[in-house]
Amino acid sequence: MADTLASLRSLMASHSPPLDALVVPSEDYHQSEYVSDRDKRRAFVSGFTGSAGVALVTMKEALLWTDGRYFLQATQELSDQWKLMRIGEDPALEVWMADNLHSNASIGVDPWCISVETSQRWERAFTKKQQNIVPTSVNLVDQVWKDRPAAQVNPVVVHPLEFSGRSVTDKLSDLRDKLVQERARGIIFTALDEVAWLFNIRGSDVSYCPVVHSFAVVTQNLALLYVDKKKVSPEVNAYLAENGVEVQEYATVATDVALLASDLLNSSTTQSGIQRNGSPNEADKVESDESVDLIWVDSASCCCALYAKLNPDKVIMKQSPLALSKALKNSAELEGLKKAHIRDGAAVVQYLVWLDNEMQDIYGASGYFLEEETKKMTEKQKKLTEVTVSDKLESFRASKEHFRGLSFPTISSVGSNAAIIHYSPRADTCAELDANKIYLFDSGAQYLDGTTDITRTVHFGKPSAHEKACYTAVLKGHIALGNARFPNGTNGHFLDILARIPLWNDGLDYRHGTGHGIGSYLNVHEGPHLISFRPRNVPLQASMTVTDEPGYYEDGNFGIRLENVLIIKEANTKFNFGDKGYLSFEHITWAPYQKKLIDLSILTREEVQWLNTYHSKCRDILAPYLDETEMAWLRRATEPVGA
Amino acid sequence: MADTLASLRSLMASHSPPLDALVVPSEDYHQSEYVSDRDKRRAFVSGFTGSAGVALVTMKEALLWTDGRYFLQATQELSDQWKLMRIGEDPALEVWMADNLHSNASIGVDPWCISVETSQRWERAFTKKQQNIVPTSVNLVDQVWKDRPAAQVNPVVVHPLEFSGRSVTDKLSDLRDKLVQERARGIIFTALDEVAWLFNIRGSDVSYCPVVHSFAVVTQNLALLYVDKKKVSPEVNAYLAENGVEVQEYATVATDVALLASDLLNSSTTQSGIQRNGSPNEADKVESDESVDLIWVDSASCCCALYAKLNPDKVIMKQSPLALSKALKNSAELEGLKKAHIRDGAAVVQYLVWLDNEMQDIYGASGYFLEEETKKMTEKQKKLTEVTVSDKLESFRASKEHFRGLSFPTISSVGSNAAIIHYSPRADTCAELDANKIYLFDSGAQYLDGTTDITRTVHFGKPSAHEKACYTAVLKGHIALGNARFPNGTNGHFLDILARIPLWNDGLDYRHGTGHGIGSYLNVHEGPHLISFRPRNVPLQASMTVTDEPGYYEDGNFGIRLENVLIIKEANTKFNFGDKGYLSFEHITWAPYQKKLIDLSILTREEVQWLNTYHSKCRDILAPYLDETEMAWLRRATEPVGA
Repeated sequence: MADTLASLRSLMASHSPPLDALVVPSEDYHQSEYVSDRDKRRAFVSGFTGSAGVALVTMKEALLWTDGRYFLQATQELSDQWKLMRIGEDPALEVWMADNLHSNASIGVDPWCISVETSQRWERAFTKKQQNIVPTSVNLVDQVWKDRPAAQVNPVVVHPLEFSGRSVTDKLSDLRDKLVQERARGIIFTALDEVAWLFNIRGSDVSYCPVVHSFAVVTQNLALLYVDKKKVSPEVNAYLAENGVEVQEYATVATDVALLASDLLNSSTTQSGIQRNGSPNEADKVESDESVDLIWVDSASCCCALYAKLNPDKVIMKQSPLALSKALKNSAELEGLKKAHIRDGAAVVQYLVWLDNEMQDIYGASGYFLEEETKKMTEKQKKLTEVTVSDKLESFRASKEHFRGLSFPTISSVGSNAAIIHYSPRADTCAELDANKIYLFDSGAQYLDGTTDITRTVHFGKPSAHEKACYTAVLKGHIALGNARFPNGTNGHFLDILARIPLWNDGLDYRHGTGHGIGSYLNVHEGPHLISFRPRNVPLQASMTVTDEPGYYEDGNFGIRLENVLIIKEANTKFNFGDKGYLSFEHITWAPYQKKLIDLSILTREEVQWLNTYHSKCRDILAPYLDETEMAWLRRATEPVGA
Repeated sequence: MADTLASLRSLMASHSPPLDALVVPSEDYHQSEYVSDRDKRRAFVSGFTGSAGVALVTMKEALLWTDGRYFLQATQELSDQWKLMRIGEDPALEVWMADNLHSNASIGVDPWCISVETSQRWERAFTKKQQNIVPTSVNLVDQVWKDRPAAQVNPVVVHPLEFSGRSVTDKLSDLRDKLVQERARGIIFTALDEVAWLFNIRGSDVSYCPVVHSFAVVTQNLALLYVDKKKVSPEVNAYLAENGVEVQEYATVATDVALLASDLLNSSTTQSGIQRNGSPNEADKVESDESVDLIWVDSASCCCALYAKLNPDKVIMKQSPLALSKALKNSAELEGLKKAHIRDGAAVVQYLVWLDNEMQDIYGASGYFLEEETKKMTEKQKKLTEVTVSDKLESFRASKEHFRGLSFPTISSVGSNAAIIHYSPRADTCAELDANKIYLFDSGAQYLDGTTDITRTVHFGKPSAHEKACYTAVLKGHIALGNARFPNGTNGHFLDILARIPLWNDGLDYRHGTGHGIGSYLNVHEGPHLISFRPRNVPLQASMTVTDEPGYYEDGNFGIRLENVLIIKEANTKFNFGDKGYLSFEHITWAPYQKKLIDLSILTREEVQWLNTYHSKCRDILAPYLDETEMAWLRRATEPVGA
């Protein structure tokens, strides 16, 4: 690591112009949250492996910004050479640079790895001292990363209509209408899940996200997919061609975007030389309308490298139209998600049954149902670790229909590790299970018909009264948010407090948002909406998905989180004041909460009723997927509790 | 009214340049919410008498914008010549003007009656079509307003330290520290309550607000009060002089601000010719520091007329430092507010006892406690109207110590009038009381030791199940907000939803915010904080006051609102996650909710418990102020209810 910083600084010094600082973001060329191993540049440079963060290397310092989910993990992973900057507490990256770097300082960054939005935010901060963003022509980290993983050639697969619910032709037609509305001549897609959604394709270029490293450009008469052509079989190529999509080499996107900017892309050839029909047609006429001359980019996902090819006066910067289209699930996707979550819930119950037995057998735990001190075991035959049990959980999921892998690295965490919000156990260093400690698992899978995400927190011995009080406060928040009804137009930001109020009542809180959208066999974190204390001006709408996942984390002791996936639907309210229409949530995650961890005296009658109803539905819904032993366990786990 | 519009249009046409539109805001020269009768220009022009709204007169159209509290009232008051524009539903005023007025249109407005913030918002909207804001040299409305009320000469009085809690010297010293921090050479105060608060003076220039028509300018060595000198007695003048405050004529503020801009105000004379000590002192040294050369204005309250005198490059636009200082009540103010609210609560109970008897006597109502159909009365001896009963309420208040008047026009409303959120009954047109209808009263008073504001909704006959369900939903929201505990730094915006959730659950809502700050013998609506669905980035802090007033309004049928004043205080939470400190609310309003209107089956056990505790405190706290009959009534009104 010391070598890495020294090598980087040497490259920075010999760069033209010499760089006073180098920013190493987490993101790949597509501003992805999860990236392939060869794109984990920030982790390579800093040693911090969390999913979110940004590194800054100056000639003298090395700093790493990350958010509240990762404060503890970053403290553990960063070496002495690195300083942790806490987002929300310390000055933001661009503010720190503006204040601490000298006037006219040159700040290097790979223009493929930074979005237009971020770069513009920096520019605003840099006006005071005239610092400059210097786009490097090569990625300096790649140059010092000797054993950087090679690029893989994973096949592109077609995502069948049965699961996608809408044809590419249909999606393109919709999109082209929106281009006309915005007077846009063309649009550039850089976000991997948007390209995958638009063309109904999936891949395996990024662990946990079934996407393909690709870009797309769409105009009224062109739909271009930029991808390593070796990944596209003749069959897939034919499917794409049928849907009016042409495949181009990944690397040609920059030159094609330049052609698009000068309105030369739609004439007769693209960079790769494919001949097209040059005769004017209806679509061409729309484009030749001089008032329709803008190129649409989403500044949050479009990288500076591509934006630099455009004429800024002819750009419309606006959220990608696919962000909302993708978030509003169609009925095939909703059905798929519900089914996937039922199979996933069954896997979670099977896992809990297995874990309950193992904890009793190996550790002498009183188990999932009983609340007693753990018996002293004279000799352990074998041991369970955070990694071995999460492998077991994966195997239960893998046995289910349509399973395609996990949707994110399983958080399997014992005791104090559970307080590390995005903890990711490693086989060599992870903790052993412990009947006297809380165990939290946050996990999900990719199924052909849907993506899942669930968190449960359990205890196989005797939880403390404090642990129970905290679990119950988290549960109350989880119930309150899930039970909310709200008028159309309400932002997730506005609802976030519902999950926090029971915690705040005791002076407790959690340093993360409360809910995110989830994809349909796509990214587990999906926008544009969010339920968070951070404002985001996106109204919730019927047929969006969103998680409900409050938590509480006590550093060094334990962590608690409960997470279900919800679908937003029209609420059947008695009245409809203001004719706005009212919305509500429907839980689609099915797995019991642990009654032993609930302090019933803190629950209201209404909350007890909700819990009993949810548990009764769990029994009915999961029954077809469980054997007799598992059902017996589930019946016990879901027996009604009294108010 | 027709004449008025014609006369105005004639003046607009002959104006140089000719005006294509004239904006007539509600506000006076101080951007006040409540204005004196001679400043009610918008009401005179449009006929709409609500407290908030803005009129636009073009050569062909006349439009009136107002918010949800006033939609119904505006519909009733506006003539056919006027079109109602609903804020939040229709395009905003500046958007409408930008879209509907032609390019380069001239839009006239009195520069004294429009804030810098508003004018800048318009300018941004006008860039598209290059429309121009034309400051008129005289107010065109005043020119056509033949019987405009004359200016009154009401004395300025000193607000004693016993109630204000802080001396002027102390406040000025604090303020001057803030000027140094912001590198400001001087500051201009235009908001009437800020001038009154800073100089510990009160007046009666505006009904309901004990303020004086005045401006203030403060530098490191000057504190100038601009006021009609005839209002200032020698005693008050001496008091001000003792505190380092010089009195100047109201009309000289513009020329003095111009002098301030050129740094000539602090040399030796002001416009009015008062000689001052010209020798440099410590304070002068601070001012001669070249880096301290800004003039601080609050763009939300400062009018364009004064701003025009300044060099825009030397202005710091930021919320007035007094906004927050004034909102954070000191211990004398908090004590005063609590005492004032107890006396006020006693007046409200006395009123309810009286009204209960009258309703039974005159209208044969079953009364406050019984829920029966009204008996048919053969002959009424007398009748009660919305105005006569509100006069009676005022008389109960007037009998209390330190009473100085009402804090806003009493909303006394029967049945469908209660659905007009800011209804103000007039003796000639108001409704008669009705034992079969809901009666809502929202009222408050000015006492020397504090300002009050309370709303109760009652029924003296047999309320419908629907009315009870709505009342109970409002009560649930009122309780939920009041019981919230939240970390320091939380905005009121974030809490607003707590009061709405029980209503949203039934598809109900209300079109107004949930809480506003309240002054200490000052304005009944006081910033800078707010509890509203509209974002306002002001964190709530301990020792602020705020109302808790959800409602529900059914046009043509009834309205419900419940309002208490709360004080924000440190919460005694079990834990203190994040070391932020947690806050909670303390009710300081004391008057019973009507049990007859509560559907107990909708309340949780916790809500019932809260209600019983609040009622029991009402009894104990109000006892010293009530006679035996009144106490017997209150005991019955506050008897515990079962869960």
